Amino acid sequence: MATKPAIPKGTRDFSPAEVAKRNYIIQTIKRNFEKYGFQPIETPSFENSETLLGKYGEEGDRLIFKVLNSGDKVKKADLKALEENNLARFSNSLSEKALRYDLTVPFARYVVQHQNEIEFPFKRYQIQPVWRADNPQKGRFREFYQCDADVVGSKSLWQEVELVQLYDAVYTDLGLQGVTIKINNRKILSGIAEVIGASDKLIDFTVALDKLDKIGADGVKAEMLTKGISEEAIEKVQPLFQFEGTTTDKLKQLATLLADSQEGMKGVEELTFICEQVNALGLDAAVLDLDVTLARGLNYYTGAIFEVAAPKEVKLGSIGGGGRYDDLTGIFGLKNMSGVGISFGLDRIYLVLEELNKFPETVTVTSKALFFNSGHQEAAFVMQTLQTLRKQGIKVEMYPDADKIAKQFKHAEKRGINSVVIVGADELANKNFTFKDLNNGTQEVVTLEQLIEKLK
Amino acid sequence: MATKPAIPKGTRDFSPAEVAKRNYIIQTIKRNFEKYGFQPIETPSFENSETLLGKYGEEGDRLIFKVLNSGDKVKKADLKALEENNLARFSNSLSEKALRYDLTVPFARYVVQHQNEIEFPFKRYQIQPVWRADNPQKGRFREFYQCDADVVGSKSLWQEVELVQLYDAVYTDLGLQGVTIKINNRKILSGIAEVIGASDKLIDFTVALDKLDKIGADGVKAEMLTKGISEEAIEKVQPLFQFEGTTTDKLKQLATLLADSQEGMKGVEELTFICEQVNALGLDAAVLDLDVTLARGLNYYTGAIFEVAAPKEVKLGSIGGGGRYDDLTGIFGLKNMSGVGISFGLDRIYLVLEELNKFPETVTVTSKALFFNSGHQEAAFVMQTLQTLRKQGIKVEMYPDADKIAKQFKHAEKRGINSVVIVGADELANKNFTFKDLNNGTQEVVTLEQLIEKLK
Repeated sequence: MATKPAIPKGTRDFSPAEVAKRNYIIQTIKRNFEKYGFQPIETPSFENSETLLGKYGEEGDRLIFKVLNSGDKVKKADLKALEENNLARFSNSLSEKALRYDLTVPFARYVVQHQNEIEFPFKRYQIQPVWRADNPQKGRFREFYQCDADVVGSKSLWQEVELVQLYDAVYTDLGLQGVTIKINNRKILSGIAEVIGASDKLIDFTVALDKLDKIGADGVKAEMLTKGISEEAIEKVQPLFQFEGTTTDKLKQLATLLADSQEGMKGVEELTFICEQVNALGLDAAVLDLDVTLARGLNYYTGAIFEVAAPKEVKLGSIGGGGRYDDLTGIFGLKNMSGVGISFGLDRIYLVLEELNKFPETVTVTSKALFFNSGHQEAAFVMQTLQTLRKQGIKVEMYPDADKIAKQFKHAEKRGINSVVIVGADELANKNFTFKDLNNGTQEVVTLEQLIEKLK
Repeated sequence: MATKPAIPKGTRDFSPAEVAKRNYIIQTIKRNFEKYGFQPIETPSFENSETLLGKYGEEGDRLIFKVLNSGDKVKKADLKALEENNLARFSNSLSEKALRYDLTVPFARYVVQHQNEIEFPFKRYQIQPVWRADNPQKGRFREFYQCDADVVGSKSLWQEVELVQLYDAVYTDLGLQGVTIKINNRKILSGIAEVIGASDKLIDFTVALDKLDKIGADGVKAEMLTKGISEEAIEKVQPLFQFEGTTTDKLKQLATLLADSQEGMKGVEELTFICEQVNALGLDAAVLDLDVTLARGLNYYTGAIFEVAAPKEVKLGSIGGGGRYDDLTGIFGLKNMSGVGISFGLDRIYLVLEELNKFPETVTVTSKALFFNSGHQEAAFVMQTLQTLRKQGIKVEMYPDADKIAKQFKHAEKRGINSVVIVGADELANKNFTFKDLNNGTQEVVTLEQLIEKLK
């Protein structure tokens, strides 16, 4: 092979330094998931196609990676479909399995399949890769990790309160001050739709309203009018154009605005409970903000909707999201299973920590010391020493070959190992070690006990 | 959907208890990899097809899962190939990517692609799933994890010594006494082939010899004769039919037997070094045993060959393997890069630990206590308490709904949570807690400080 090998578009290799940083984020999330009583499950990378197809809309189906049938099964290719240019049907005739597109649908499938073994309410977390045939761009890949925590089997709003706390706990541990947890409620959106008298215009409405900062009230109104939302309707929701203050202030305004909508008022009640309790308990790194333009996955969520915005100094959009869905498992035939969950965007969080220089310096996995190799006798003595140190849990290694000292020094440096230990003829005779700290250049001769003390 | 959903053949869902056990094994392996100076990398789940195809022989190619091209690209289907029943060509016309079949080829690709950023010798570990369209059976799945550690860029035999130690360290930590690390050397096999005068009969020879325990010396000889190995050749290797004793004894016999083979004697020399050093350093859980019938991946390995057998009381074959390959990266155009590595079979190790009842009881991830929910005021107080406990790193949770006490008790029991904390009207008034230990049924009223002490 003449050309250098490469990897598929939108995928990545991770070097030791990158894996260490990613694991730091994953471990932080995991530790907090477990503190909040969530337990891990794992599902297969590929599911039967019928489990995934039709669950993410037409666009989603198009982005699902299908696994080609093996062996003789490809003979079943539906050539008529190909002729008719029905590529979806042609593809499906060649494939029975597909790579996981997210963790929510496999979780719903898991709950239904194992319903008799599961004790409800079931708090599960899942941290696994997912795949999408999307066009790669900054922070968007074809293979990426999702980190999800969901509770299924209870409608208690304490869970929403805990999920906000959980977000805050993770971002606090990551040192990410200034994160905004935006919250909304599907029922408030329904209430607004009622008030403007046009449910089908709801998305146009929220999209336009979301531009308030950028194009001002007049710009928003103009856009709404072009979308066919009436002057009268816009008048009714006038308060949303000066929608500011604390969550308490905002909820009061909403209570007035949505007074005639039963569903809207239910939404106000739910949000009031969540915001009051969160405020009473207090947040560290994050701020909770009510955002009525928040409408992600509108058809999916039925109660609370969450989205997390990175600290303002980073331009990177959402670093997490979630919400309540009252019929999570209905698609697989199990009714009345309300779920609520949140997700962390590993790659986005990575970019934010990198940009703000928030990764602790200690994150990288490297040996505490490189022992030089000065020949057979010395190496045999070093190996005994390494064994003793490793049994104490200390990460150490020996340069495998008796190369020139300069080369071994350079290896330690390039590997980012901060100290080297030299055993030459003298040290071997005296059963001691020359310890050199590469950070400050100091060097001293030490006993085994002293060496252990230094490296521990 | 009327029928209960299912997952594809040969794949698995892992419940919280199973994930916890798997992570216990993975963490043990990882911790030891790092103690020995190995650093983690990760590679994409799918590679370009040309990276994988042709690297695992014809049978291997057949077992590689291919990813179907997305969108319009399926129009490139090679219908002529389908007509001619050339299913491999037809499949390849529909697919440009394939799921990872092992971690070794992606590692070789990684080394070549990133050769300018890597500091050699490069000690990497990699713990990721791989996929094979194999027929599922006990301990064999279509999706499974491999845990590999390899060093590339040095021929030093100290690495073989360390890899044996590393095997031993992991099995010691897992409490798996009585593991046998079998070792052989490709050069010894070449030497035997020279002595029997028939390189092409080598595999027949080792396969027959391996049956010594089962069918006895006469049976083995009979089989060798039917395979076309001459009476004279069998006479020459007669010592291998009573090949017993310590590795030192065995190496002495081999040195006599292979005296005329230069390559064979090189193999004896290498093995002597490795065995002497390993014996000098000592092993804890494992025994090192020289096995001349060990011939796994014959065309692949060029020096040491390793295979680990589970403790004798478990009938389960190999739980790990590895060896030295002098031309790891040659397939991608980078010559003279010797590598040596070992692999741990996660699923097999899991089965062994399960069968021998060696998983520590503390392995499962559950909350330390379930706090009961006795209504709004009490719940709000409990939430404050949970916040305090979680900030101390304690895993706790509240039952989300104010259901009947009996139901909440049952939930704790079924979840395997060992203590419950009750906050009713009295406790709320006195700001204390009724703590109940479900293991021994004792119950007492405690302060927050006492509660923290109990749960820490």
